[in-house]
Amino acid sequence: MSNTNQLYIPTFEDVKAAHQRIAPYIHRTPVLTSSYFDSLCGAELFFKCENFQKAGAFKVRGACNAVFGLSDEKAAKGVATHSSGNHALSLSYAAGRRGIKATVVMPRTAPEAKKAAVRGYGGEVLECEPSTTAREEMLEQLVARTGADFVHPYNDHRVIAGQGTCSLELYQEIEALDAVVAPIGGGGMISGTCLTLSNVSPRTAIYAAEPKNADDVYRSFHAGEIIEDDSPQTVADGLKVGLRPRTWHFVSKYVSDVLLATEAEIIDAMYLTWQRMKIVIEPSSAVPLATILKNKSLFEGKRVGVILTGGNVDL
Amino acid sequence: MSNTNQLYIPTFEDVKAAHQRIAPYIHRTPVLTSSYFDSLCGAELFFKCENFQKAGAFKVRGACNAVFGLSDEKAAKGVATHSSGNHALSLSYAAGRRGIKATVVMPRTAPEAKKAAVRGYGGEVLECEPSTTAREEMLEQLVARTGADFVHPYNDHRVIAGQGTCSLELYQEIEALDAVVAPIGGGGMISGTCLTLSNVSPRTAIYAAEPKNADDVYRSFHAGEIIEDDSPQTVADGLKVGLRPRTWHFVSKYVSDVLLATEAEIIDAMYLTWQRMKIVIEPSSAVPLATILKNKSLFEGKRVGVILTGGNVDL
Repeated sequence: MSNTNQLYIPTFEDVKAAHQRIAPYIHRTPVLTSSYFDSLCGAELFFKCENFQKAGAFKVRGACNAVFGLSDEKAAKGVATHSSGNHALSLSYAAGRRGIKATVVMPRTAPEAKKAAVRGYGGEVLECEPSTTAREEMLEQLVARTGADFVHPYNDHRVIAGQGTCSLELYQEIEALDAVVAPIGGGGMISGTCLTLSNVSPRTAIYAAEPKNADDVYRSFHAGEIIEDDSPQTVADGLKVGLRPRTWHFVSKYVSDVLLATEAEIIDAMYLTWQRMKIVIEPSSAVPLATILKNKSLFEGKRVGVILTGGNVDL
Repeated sequence: MSNTNQLYIPTFEDVKAAHQRIAPYIHRTPVLTSSYFDSLCGAELFFKCENFQKAGAFKVRGACNAVFGLSDEKAAKGVATHSSGNHALSLSYAAGRRGIKATVVMPRTAPEAKKAAVRGYGGEVLECEPSTTAREEMLEQLVARTGADFVHPYNDHRVIAGQGTCSLELYQEIEALDAVVAPIGGGGMISGTCLTLSNVSPRTAIYAAEPKNADDVYRSFHAGEIIEDDSPQTVADGLKVGLRPRTWHFVSKYVSDVLLATEAEIIDAMYLTWQRMKIVIEPSSAVPLATILKNKSLFEGKRVGVILTGGNVDL
C-alpha cells in the first residue's frame, strides 16, 4: 500500500508543527470537570472533550494534519482511506475544507447511515465486498489509478502527530497531571499522547483503556509483541481494530498499563456521563472512566486527565 | 402563604447583588456555538448552557439567592417549597451548601425517582395528597410550625433577581445580541432576562418560547391578562405551570412575542441538539430552538442568545 515514510516515527517537533497547521480547522476543545465524578473516584478528573470536536471526534486532528500537509500538486489528486467510522468522517471534513476529493472504501454491507454520514461531510463512498482482501485491493487500485494519498486511520506518522495535539492542549491547560487515561483501539490517540507527554511531562503516567471484549492490546502488552484479535465484538466499535508497527512502538515504550472494562461497565459509564455531565459521548469514550471506576485505588488522590474521544453515537 | 415583600418588584441592583452573592455556589456556565445550527437557521446562535449548571438547571441561581440572602436567624429555621422539578433540587442544593434544612412538599403520587433526587441533594420530602389545596395547606402548616422561609419557584423577587444573573453573564460574554429566546413556564427565567436586558441592552428583543400544548402565556400575552391553563400535557414538564403577578409584570412589559412549538418540534429539536452539539438538554430547553427553526425569517442574519435552561432528563 502506498504510504510515504512507512517507517518514520514522528517527533514532538511534528506535533508542534501539526498544531499550528490544523488550528484553523479544528476546535480547541474545552476541559470539563465534575464534582460528582471527583467525589465518586476520590481523584481530580479533567475531561478533554473531543466529543465537541469538528466531525465529532479527535480523528479530525490527524486527518487535517495529513490533508493540510500535502503539497498542492499532491493534494490535487485527493486523499483516500478505508474506515467506516470517525476517521472516514474526519478525512472527508478535512478534504472538504481544503477543497479536494476524499474517497472512502467501505464494505457494501456497512450501515447506510454510515455511508450517508461520510457523504454528508462531502466524501465519496466506494463500496467493496466485505473482506479485508477486497478492501485492500480496491484501495490499492484507487491509489494506482488516481494518485490519491492514502491516509491510514492510525498507522501514519502524520496522523499520530495530529492526535498528539490533543494532549498538548490538555497539558497547556491543566498543570501537574499525575496520569492520563485514553481509550485504545489501533493506538493512534494513545501514540500521540505518548509522543507529547513523554516530551513535555514525562512524570505523567499513561494508561490505555480497552474493552475486555477486544483485549488484543492488553495481551500484546503482556506478551511483548503484537497479538491480533479475531473479530472482537464490543459496543465500543471504534476500538475493534488492532495495533500496527508505529502505534506498537509507542504503546510498548511509554504506556504504564492497559486497563480493561466489560461491556456493562462501559455502558454504565457512558450513561452516567450523559446523566451527570450532560454531555453526549460515544461508547469508546466511556472506556477510560469505566476503568478508573474499577481501579479507584490506582487513581486515588491524583490529578487525572481523561480523553473523551468522540460523541458520534446513534441516539 | 408567608412570603416577605409580596409586592416588591426586583431591580437591576438586585440582580447585581444576587450575582455577587451566589457566585461561590454556582457555575459560570459556558456559551457554546454550533456551525451546524448557524447554517441551518441562517443566524448566529449563542447557547447559554445552564444544563451544565449545579443541580442541572438555572433554577439554582434563584434558589441560592434566596437561601444566601437570609439572615442567620431566619436561615436557622430552614427553607421550604412545593415543586417536583428542578426548583426542588436547587433549593435542596442551596440549603445543603448553607448547612440548613430544606423541606419540599410533593404529591405522594410523584415519581419515586423525583423524590429520590430531592433526597440525593439533601432535601426532605413531605408527601401530600395530590391536589393544589392539599399542597398549599401542608406548606402553610409547615411554615407556621417551623418558621421555614417559603421560596416560591418563580413568584418571588429573590428568585427572579437570581435568574436574571444568567442573561447578565450572557451579556458580559457575547456582544450585540439582537434577540434572546428563553423557554417560559411560570416566567421566572423570562422575568430575570427582561429585568437584566431592559437595563443593560434594551435593544435586544426578548422572545418567550412555549409549548403549544401549554400555551397559557401566549393566550395571556394576547389577551392582556393572566389566563390559566387547565392541566396542560407537554413533554416539557418544567413549563406546565402558570404566570403569577410578578412574572406577568415582566412578560407584559418587556417580551416582544411568545412563540409556540408543537410536541414533535420540541422532541426533534432536543434530539438534534444531543446529536449535533453533543450536549444533553431536557425537553423544556429545546423549546427555544424549536421556535427558532420554525420562525427562521424572524431571526435571519441576527445574533441570537438561546437559554438552554437545564439538562435533567430521564435517559
